Amino acid sequence: MSHPLFERHRPLLDRALQAIAERGYWSPFPESPKAYDEHLPAYGKTAFEALLNQPFPLTLPGTVGKVGAETSPYDVALGITYPKVELDQLFAAIAEAQGAWRKAGPEAWIGVSLEILTRINKRSFELAYAVMHTSGQAFMMAFQAGCPHAQDRALEAIAYAYDEMRRIPSSARWEKPQGRNEPLRMEKHFRIVPRGIGLVIGCNTFPTWNAYPGMFASLATGNAVVVKPHPNATLPLAITVQIAREVLAEAGFDPNIVMLVAHAAGDDTAQRLALRPEVKLIDFTGSTANGDWLEKNARQAQVYTEKAGVNQIVVDSAEDFKSVARNVAFSLSLYTGQMCTAPQNVYVPKGGIDTSEGHLSLDQVAQGLAEAVQKLVGDPARAVEILGAVVNDGVAQRIEAARGLGPVVLDSQAITHTQFPNARVRTPLIVKLDAKDDAKYLKEWFGPIAFVIATDSTAQSLDIARRAVRDHGALTLSLYSKSPKVVEDAIEVAEDAGVALSINLTGGVFVNQSAAFSDYHGTGANPAANSALTDAAFVAGRFRVVQHRMHV
Amino acid sequence: MSHPLFERHRPLLDRALQAIAERGYWSPFPESPKAYDEHLPAYGKTAFEALLNQPFPLTLPGTVGKVGAETSPYDVALGITYPKVELDQLFAAIAEAQGAWRKAGPEAWIGVSLEILTRINKRSFELAYAVMHTSGQAFMMAFQAGCPHAQDRALEAIAYAYDEMRRIPSSARWEKPQGRNEPLRMEKHFRIVPRGIGLVIGCNTFPTWNAYPGMFASLATGNAVVVKPHPNATLPLAITVQIAREVLAEAGFDPNIVMLVAHAAGDDTAQRLALRPEVKLIDFTGSTANGDWLEKNARQAQVYTEKAGVNQIVVDSAEDFKSVARNVAFSLSLYTGQMCTAPQNVYVPKGGIDTSEGHLSLDQVAQGLAEAVQKLVGDPARAVEILGAVVNDGVAQRIEAARGLGPVVLDSQAITHTQFPNARVRTPLIVKLDAKDDAKYLKEWFGPIAFVIATDSTAQSLDIARRAVRDHGALTLSLYSKSPKVVEDAIEVAEDAGVALSINLTGGVFVNQSAAFSDYHGTGANPAANSALTDAAFVAGRFRVVQHRMHV
Repeated sequence: MSHPLFERHRPLLDRALQAIAERGYWSPFPESPKAYDEHLPAYGKTAFEALLNQPFPLTLPGTVGKVGAETSPYDVALGITYPKVELDQLFAAIAEAQGAWRKAGPEAWIGVSLEILTRINKRSFELAYAVMHTSGQAFMMAFQAGCPHAQDRALEAIAYAYDEMRRIPSSARWEKPQGRNEPLRMEKHFRIVPRGIGLVIGCNTFPTWNAYPGMFASLATGNAVVVKPHPNATLPLAITVQIAREVLAEAGFDPNIVMLVAHAAGDDTAQRLALRPEVKLIDFTGSTANGDWLEKNARQAQVYTEKAGVNQIVVDSAEDFKSVARNVAFSLSLYTGQMCTAPQNVYVPKGGIDTSEGHLSLDQVAQGLAEAVQKLVGDPARAVEILGAVVNDGVAQRIEAARGLGPVVLDSQAITHTQFPNARVRTPLIVKLDAKDDAKYLKEWFGPIAFVIATDSTAQSLDIARRAVRDHGALTLSLYSKSPKVVEDAIEVAEDAGVALSINLTGGVFVNQSAAFSDYHGTGANPAANSALTDAAFVAGRFRVVQHRMHV
Repeated sequence: MSHPLFERHRPLLDRALQAIAERGYWSPFPESPKAYDEHLPAYGKTAFEALLNQPFPLTLPGTVGKVGAETSPYDVALGITYPKVELDQLFAAIAEAQGAWRKAGPEAWIGVSLEILTRINKRSFELAYAVMHTSGQAFMMAFQAGCPHAQDRALEAIAYAYDEMRRIPSSARWEKPQGRNEPLRMEKHFRIVPRGIGLVIGCNTFPTWNAYPGMFASLATGNAVVVKPHPNATLPLAITVQIAREVLAEAGFDPNIVMLVAHAAGDDTAQRLALRPEVKLIDFTGSTANGDWLEKNARQAQVYTEKAGVNQIVVDSAEDFKSVARNVAFSLSLYTGQMCTAPQNVYVPKGGIDTSEGHLSLDQVAQGLAEAVQKLVGDPARAVEILGAVVNDGVAQRIEAARGLGPVVLDSQAITHTQFPNARVRTPLIVKLDAKDDAKYLKEWFGPIAFVIATDSTAQSLDIARRAVRDHGALTLSLYSKSPKVVEDAIEVAEDAGVALSINLTGGVFVNQSAAFSDYHGTGANPAANSALTDAAFVAGRFRVVQHRMHV
């Protein structure tokens, strides 16, 4: 039996299924604000501002008080509170809601998920302000990465979920020949059932982009979902949960299938949620320490984690070094290097590199990168639209600590934001190190911190890169080389260590960008993440098949 | 690029892909010995006997001695030794072999796996004797379950693996429109890479059937495989590994992609293997204690476990109780109840049940089951062909212990096997219990031990069944009822608790049988197994995708 919401969104789903099969370019949710109804930008801003300084309009079972103390990295106090919930009551309400949701079946789960998603898209401007003022991303990035790109990733997860579920027949006739006797005849029915409850643990820097794949993968496979946002990035997920609950209720389901657990920083809410026996799936983005804790302790659940890593660029040679430097400078600067895909280590042979404009020494390479960054962030008004704001004081302190690691090629500077004068805005720091300083550079320095590392050769650069991916994890690896042999070697390293490789990016594509429906975000093959967003493995374990059989 | 072995077996693979999409009846490997070349049975017996009382012909790197002390449950000393290997040397040899295997790609992995499988099929009679004299299964069962049925399950795993891998495009062209400017154009390449090494931990009762799915799922996705058989069921897997290594070598690969680690009972080989950092996948069949240990401690690996459970039959009413009793009696007797799918608890309302021949009291039901078992195993010559032999002394001792739990409805008897007079052969024990005796019956009594449990009503029977599945795990649930309402209730319990349900089996299909390509063996949704044999979730995590991208 089909579901009206499934039928409504069938064309979108079909196109998404084609996209995941081809993995070329496709984006259903426009990334240009101009593609949206002209009243939406102003409406979204008004809607965001209307949320400030009051309780967020969300009614949840088990509410015992209020919680919330978000402060924008742009130094705007949000002043929003959320329901503080008592977990036993919350989970009791979920238990009541689950039966009907389980029985509704895949087409209802998919249809409801797609309806939620398209409504989220309509509130993209409101959500963009929410992402901006929790993560510190500049508005345009908050809009693009936090809204259409995040929505694309959600749709990708829904499409993979459906692609796995649709291949399971709902029933089968089984006829086993018995020689001259009548065959044995049975009918078998295969019902897809969810695992239980999916817990989604959000992060501060990409509250929607990193939470949506797991959230929608779990929901689209019939699970209930408990969303636990970062205490300083609750608003974007509160809006998301609000929309989800509206759609569920309108579709005749108990809205308690999707819950929000807002909480105060530093409490044990995440741990208590993760150890609930009802929680069978956990999607986590955050620190290696917290991710490892979940993997080790939340034994009752399948845990999908994205943790820290060391992203790297191997510079071997270049056609046009200026375009290399421009490209790398943007990757170092975008959102102040606070992307999980942002490069940190730039390996350069100490003998320098060949370029089409002649040989460049190591110092010339380092200087060229520094100048490109300086040029990109030299104009404060333009710089803040790229850098955004520093998400928390830890990043600012980390810049201080990194300054002392070696010779500073480019110092980090504080920039005054004209619109938000108290915002923490910092430009990238570039420090020169030697290959032997691996104790310094073989760990994540989260923030706008890059190292130019002198190696004996490109071969050594690749060796270090391989070891770093294997031992410390990475989401991205980037190579610049004119040599087909070096390109082959780098591909070998990437496939052996298990990291996505970008080769000779000099134009409008950057190593820290991964496109939904085309790029796999993470491989699941190194310590930075135990899964990829999104592939079959990310969804196939979120449901089970329960059969019953009888003689015909 | 295709591989010749892939092309050779393409028709078989295509048919298997159709079978997993439809899940009706299909079996490529005939279960009737008569379907095989007429010289094969005698040849297989000779080949088996030629293996006895000498070192098994297998050369492995890191060999430091000999190990092996298998004793047949039929009291035939096998006298076979296997290479005893030093693990560091073994893993060093695997590391050397892995690179070329990884690069060979999915069609080579699939082609080699299918070639291994078809050669295994040709040695089915030799393998049947090996399974018989390690597990204690009667010859016909050892042949069917240990050879064609196990091979079917292996092919099923290979087909699922290919089905997942084939949906990943090897490359894509990505063109992102840029308004009036030229689009951004990239080419992307997606390479499938294995996780590393798959460890397969075999069991004593079904050395091939339970090992093959994991072994072939890992191999078909490019992993190396280390097979660790049960110390008393090494031979079937040694033959399997021997065939795999032959095929690998003939296909130009390093045979060290498939290894055997035979070991002595009671040593720590399993634990040492499971904690090797190179091991990324573990397939385990065995006790709950050992399975839980792996899940808790082998944190570097994805662990697939099949553990203990409590299988149940709910008797509510029946059209023809005699055929019910016959069917259940066979399920209790087959291989002396030593199947992971064999029923243990039979719930019957204390007020008795309605049948088409009239009302039967609880005691009449219990007596009817006892008589049906007695009839089935009354003739020793026929009985041993159903019962086989008791796999180890623990089972025999467990029968003793179970006798004291309550009133004995049918006592277990020792039977003398005419061909193997010292074989341990036992008939089923049936003990009557009350619903309140849950401390006795809510745990696995592995072996020919069944309980007829008096409940207040079928509703209570179903409640107990639900709780047992959730808390203790189960692979099978069986219902006998004439009432459509009770059937619906049982389906609800099955789907809620996550266990496969068989309804009104009275003919030639038994609850303990699960057919490859049609029945899911296990759901992965209750404590008896964290995965199903075989579905997408069982294979999707055994490989990863590593991409590289560059501008066009």
